Amino acid sequence: MSSPLMNTPAAGTAPKEPTKVTSGSLPNLEGKTPNPLGSELAGNIENYIGMARVPVGLAGPLRMQGEYAKGEYSIPLATTEGALVASFTRGMKAISLSGGAVTRVISEGVQRAPYFRFEDLATAADFLKWIAVHQHEFERITGENSRFAKLTSITPTLEGNAVTLMVEFTTGDAAGQNMVTICTDRICRFIASSYPGKIVEWYLEVNASGDKKASRVSFRNVRGKRVCAEIVVPRDIVISVLKTTPETIDRFGRAACYGALQSGTMGVHAHLANGLTALFIACGQDVACVAEASVGTVRMEVTEAGDLYGSVTLPNLIVGTVGGGTGLPTQRECLEMIDCFGTGGARRFAEIATAVCLAGELSILAALAAGHFSAAHERLGRKG
Amino acid sequence: MSSPLMNTPAAGTAPKEPTKVTSGSLPNLEGKTPNPLGSELAGNIENYIGMARVPVGLAGPLRMQGEYAKGEYSIPLATTEGALVASFTRGMKAISLSGGAVTRVISEGVQRAPYFRFEDLATAADFLKWIAVHQHEFERITGENSRFAKLTSITPTLEGNAVTLMVEFTTGDAAGQNMVTICTDRICRFIASSYPGKIVEWYLEVNASGDKKASRVSFRNVRGKRVCAEIVVPRDIVISVLKTTPETIDRFGRAACYGALQSGTMGVHAHLANGLTALFIACGQDVACVAEASVGTVRMEVTEAGDLYGSVTLPNLIVGTVGGGTGLPTQRECLEMIDCFGTGGARRFAEIATAVCLAGELSILAALAAGHFSAAHERLGRKG
Amino acid sequence: MSSPLMNTPAAGTAPKEPTKVTSGSLPNLEGKTPNPLGSELAGNIENYIGMARVPVGLAGPLRMQGEYAKGEYSIPLATTEGALVASFTRGMKAISLSGGAVTRVISEGVQRAPYFRFEDLATAADFLKWIAVHQHEFERITGENSRFAKLTSITPTLEGNAVTLMVEFTTGDAAGQNMVTICTDRICRFIASSYPGKIVEWYLEVNASGDKKASRVSFRNVRGKRVCAEIVVPRDIVISVLKTTPETIDRFGRAACYGALQSGTMGVHAHLANGLTALFIACGQDVACVAEASVGTVRMEVTEAGDLYGSVTLPNLIVGTVGGGTGLPTQRECLEMIDCFGTGGARRFAEIATAVCLAGELSILAALAAGHFSAAHERLGRKG
Amino acid sequence: MSSPLMNTPAAGTAPKEPTKVTSGSLPNLEGKTPNPLGSELAGNIENYIGMARVPVGLAGPLRMQGEYAKGEYSIPLATTEGALVASFTRGMKAISLSGGAVTRVISEGVQRAPYFRFEDLATAADFLKWIAVHQHEFERITGENSRFAKLTSITPTLEGNAVTLMVEFTTGDAAGQNMVTICTDRICRFIASSYPGKIVEWYLEVNASGDKKASRVSFRNVRGKRVCAEIVVPRDIVISVLKTTPETIDRFGRAACYGALQSGTMGVHAHLANGLTALFIACGQDVACVAEASVGTVRMEVTEAGDLYGSVTLPNLIVGTVGGGTGLPTQRECLEMIDCFGTGGARRFAEIATAVCLAGELSILAALAAGHFSAAHERLGRKG
Repeated sequence: MSSPLMNTPAAGTAPKEPTKVTSGSLPNLEGKTPNPLGSELAGNIENYIGMARVPVGLAGPLRMQGEYAKGEYSIPLATTEGALVASFTRGMKAISLSGGAVTRVISEGVQRAPYFRFEDLATAADFLKWIAVHQHEFERITGENSRFAKLTSITPTLEGNAVTLMVEFTTGDAAGQNMVTICTDRICRFIASSYPGKIVEWYLEVNASGDKKASRVSFRNVRGKRVCAEIVVPRDIVISVLKTTPETIDRFGRAACYGALQSGTMGVHAHLANGLTALFIACGQDVACVAEASVGTVRMEVTEAGDLYGSVTLPNLIVGTVGGGTGLPTQRECLEMIDCFGTGGARRFAEIATAVCLAGELSILAALAAGHFSAAHERLGRKG
Repeated sequence: MSSPLMNTPAAGTAPKEPTKVTSGSLPNLEGKTPNPLGSELAGNIENYIGMARVPVGLAGPLRMQGEYAKGEYSIPLATTEGALVASFTRGMKAISLSGGAVTRVISEGVQRAPYFRFEDLATAADFLKWIAVHQHEFERITGENSRFAKLTSITPTLEGNAVTLMVEFTTGDAAGQNMVTICTDRICRFIASSYPGKIVEWYLEVNASGDKKASRVSFRNVRGKRVCAEIVVPRDIVISVLKTTPETIDRFGRAACYGALQSGTMGVHAHLANGLTALFIACGQDVACVAEASVGTVRMEVTEAGDLYGSVTLPNLIVGTVGGGTGLPTQRECLEMIDCFGTGGARRFAEIATAVCLAGELSILAALAAGHFSAAHERLGRKG
Repeated sequence: MSSPLMNTPAAGTAPKEPTKVTSGSLPNLEGKTPNPLGSELAGNIENYIGMARVPVGLAGPLRMQGEYAKGEYSIPLATTEGALVASFTRGMKAISLSGGAVTRVISEGVQRAPYFRFEDLATAADFLKWIAVHQHEFERITGENSRFAKLTSITPTLEGNAVTLMVEFTTGDAAGQNMVTICTDRICRFIASSYPGKIVEWYLEVNASGDKKASRVSFRNVRGKRVCAEIVVPRDIVISVLKTTPETIDRFGRAACYGALQSGTMGVHAHLANGLTALFIACGQDVACVAEASVGTVRMEVTEAGDLYGSVTLPNLIVGTVGGGTGLPTQRECLEMIDCFGTGGARRFAEIATAVCLAGELSILAALAAGHFSAAHERLGRKG
Repeated sequence: MSSPLMNTPAAGTAPKEPTKVTSGSLPNLEGKTPNPLGSELAGNIENYIGMARVPVGLAGPLRMQGEYAKGEYSIPLATTEGALVASFTRGMKAISLSGGAVTRVISEGVQRAPYFRFEDLATAADFLKWIAVHQHEFERITGENSRFAKLTSITPTLEGNAVTLMVEFTTGDAAGQNMVTICTDRICRFIASSYPGKIVEWYLEVNASGDKKASRVSFRNVRGKRVCAEIVVPRDIVISVLKTTPETIDRFGRAACYGALQSGTMGVHAHLANGLTALFIACGQDVACVAEASVGTVRMEVTEAGDLYGSVTLPNLIVGTVGGGTGLPTQRECLEMIDCFGTGGARRFAEIATAVCLAGELSILAALAAGHFSAAHERLGRKG
């Protein structure tokens, strides 16, 4: 279970001025460079035949008042869904005119869930005690197998004669699934060779860590980063930019909450997946993690003063700014555009991603609340 | 609630020979064409600044024994995750050597969930009866507003003085969210103007349709297409290709089932999102729908004869082969590669997508069951 | 899937004047009669050793404005939890002073979920079509095996080579699980002997019907009866009886909604199980059904006029007024006290049960919202 | 988050010989005593009008090999559902002939979930840090307000500008909800008066602790006691007592697992609520807690040796042997019958309750697997 982050941003990660997007400044996105050679893509793809090309639109500017992201950012969104960039830009305008999104990274952790099966319950129960007193060994093994991964907790769940361990790490600026897999594998092999009792069988993962899937356990705890973004939009900006009133959005928000409860979603939101997917494709993230990253909790209410309070809480935002696809040509350009490329960028990226979602939710909730949703899609969307 | 599909494939949609992938046959993927102009992307993007480029690897061949997809297909997967294409290819080899994946599209439907609020419960209860006797009006309105959408059912859920309607359509070969939005909007406007009682407020959607989110209701019913893929892998192929035994995978499958139950996922699977995301990016699908499409149920068991039975059931596979991003240059090339571009392609694409997932699950379950998972990622993955 | 109830209460079921509770009027509850003999309890218990005695307190009066329950009722609640009867009485006072709870039975249905397994997916898919065209046979079989059960729908769910049927019946005034079991058994035996394809194995139930467990499918649809109760409590009664304001309860209700979303309950409520359990024990219901009956959706909001709107929607209220334990001595006395004993009583009982829950939620939400919850338990509860 | 219990049973709680049930030994159950006076029921009921009487059957004997429960027990079950006692007795026979149920109490904890709302996210995030460094104050307050409650953890969950605390205690031999409520109230009042930042509003509970409701968070962690019971039934006993084979139950178990996944229950089981409700009514438990206690995970598999492995894991077993209704006349008799009355009895009671559930699941799974389920209910159940 993650504790609150107590650390403060290191001096070295202070935000720089983001790249200005001008004609010619993005040769890869603009198609002025050839495709990478297969040899340049080792570790990213096998049996390479070419590059899929996905349109990127620039949304924003988005003003940020985070701990790691401060100032204005133009956000690259890769999508083929008409109206998406325009809708997010509208939400970003409301945020920016309101002073910018406040964001906080609340906790961090990436998990693997190995499984150990014993001959009987009594042995499994003993195993819980053995695990509890060997945490320092597991930490040592982690340190020997990764420069970046740090073991933060091992939480066992016993069921009959079987125990599943939720092994949780922090992973620095990497999304980190691979290092977590490797470290957990080594921990398991140590357990398998050192545990005095008989282990009948063990697996590195039993579909229980929340990897590439929405899960109740990850939703409640954290997977990747748990991040929150918040804004108070003054009433006049709600009216002028979002074309409705705080009260209308508040009423809609209440109805949508019950909609979520009735339909059995994890959390409540309108379309978190839209912003995350578009940002993830553009920025070289593991896009399949949208499966888990797109659960979250949106709340919009009228304040005492008659303004609009809005927040988005994303518990499973699994992102990285080193490794994975982050170094590929267009992906790096997009990350640099928002000053998130490389070491020191992951929390800034997480804050921006959550604020992007806040913009998307503001815009769509306003449209749904005011009855403008269908019209926007008819105007800007492709006729299906 | 969807009924089983009773229709048979039309003659016109008989599968053709898929495109052979040879050097020079894919000018867009290979980067031999310039980026599209912004004007060519109307309806797909706003504030266009360029094209993100994502590596595409060719997996397969994958032999299909579906109703709509028959024969061998090479599958374009766009990803930056090392080992993914290799792993899926391994699963496809097991499937193809076993005679090919059998697939069925079980039902179809895309929904919107509008909400109507009344002054009291009694009025809301009366509304249920009014809705029940006006289905033909709703069908007429649908017909007037879309050439492709067909209204299949309206299922109301009453909660206090509010009623949410689950309005379900089929949408032909399009993913169809836009046409469903427009038709539902028109139905709602008709209701708002024709219902004799007082409607206090109504919204086109209250986060309850399963759009861009995993939901229990969609999981149980259908969203897009409900598709199942199945294979029986002979024991010797399990051993030679998947490097383990049917019994080992069977035991793992049981443990993974309990892993899913403990962690609270919808269905049980290892990484459906991986194959779907890679295929969706390559083929111009609405990638954000991975949020909902990536729930599903995987079952792998040893058969009486000692072989391996495997199936994947995807209830929320929302795909299209017309509209959206399907006509963009590289996307169209990828769809044509699997003979799924344009009218008549959606069910074939759905069958292939589900079989791709089956391949991915076979490969990863074998690796996890046999203890090879970490090694594969260390060999082929980027060091994080 | 249940359709709205179109029928109106039969003349014969018009509510009578409920029994007045006076000293001596309840000889069984008052302990003036001996315990039943074992022979009198055939069909209710085996290896009988005596009767557990549970304290019954009288809550109310509760004014009802239902379709089946009208007028004032005193409600027998069997519990050992101090403060419970007092708290429910407080809620009933608020309801009664506000004119009485409006209630509606929205739909009805009790299910069994048999499972059929085939050799392959293709055969399973064919089975769906066979089931769809044999509904009249299943209705005939139902009619031959029960005077009360009526088959309303059979909804199949295919997963790989297996199909689970959700077989749904109405069961008159009985809770009906036994008749539903018997009729489904006969339907399955007919299928097993008549279906032309090979059925590898079949089971009458695979833990999927929602029997004795909270399930997402039952929550969304119906199990037993889906009932809603509603009240508008004028502001001055909120203040004088519930000791808080509509605005305070409204704010609490919003927070509680997010509490439910975060913790992953089905619906949102404070303690539906408390009222239902106490009423079920008193009135001879199948108390184990609290597992499923205690999910539901509570909504409390301030109205435009500044009053308090409150509703409780119970989708899985499985109750009966014939059969089961309803004819036992104290149980019958309790049912008669609220004019619900025997034929024609089930919908009235369902309406009353839901209004009891509304009272309980009003009282506890007011206490929690106003900060009085702990004090009430300290004053009236046993010191643990 | 609960850690494994490291303590061992105190000498003073060694199991005694349970009461023999002979004619005349149970005057209260047998109805030979008058009803209690209202004054004797203070703290249990208000507006007392009499005692509901519920038939009690004796199931068993049940052989136990727990840490706290050892030897043979006859189990009082209060129910009106015909066939229930007989079915549980059959399961207990299988368990007892197999040497007795092995049981373990894995962890303990009862929660309240208070909510604090702040003016903004930044203040809420600061609050997390303040909470983390004041744990000793919260422990001190707990000690001052209860002799039995011990604070074990406070886990915050931030959502926007609001924080919900999961405050967890152990409660000795009491079910403990009242003491947990009081201690949490005092902790909240301390926070409200000591926290340097502005708290906009706070509530003692926001429907998030799992009290009287099934919740994903409680299911994953613990509520009350997390207990596991296990048995290996030799093949010949499966055949002679359960009238089927281990392989048949194993196959059924697999199908039932997928039934649970499809229907969206928490865990997988057939009818945990049946045994728990009957035992809870008999033994003076808070019966409404069946809402949460009846979630759990059942696993039955054929072993390598061809026998039947069965286990039941109950994460939310909230029980007590002091306080509540445990001291009432028939309730005390029932608790004494299984040597669980008073201090030192709670873990023994928890072990027995879980083994009772194991018996119930064995019997019903055997009946469902073998196709005998309907027949048993027709023979012993009341005709509905």
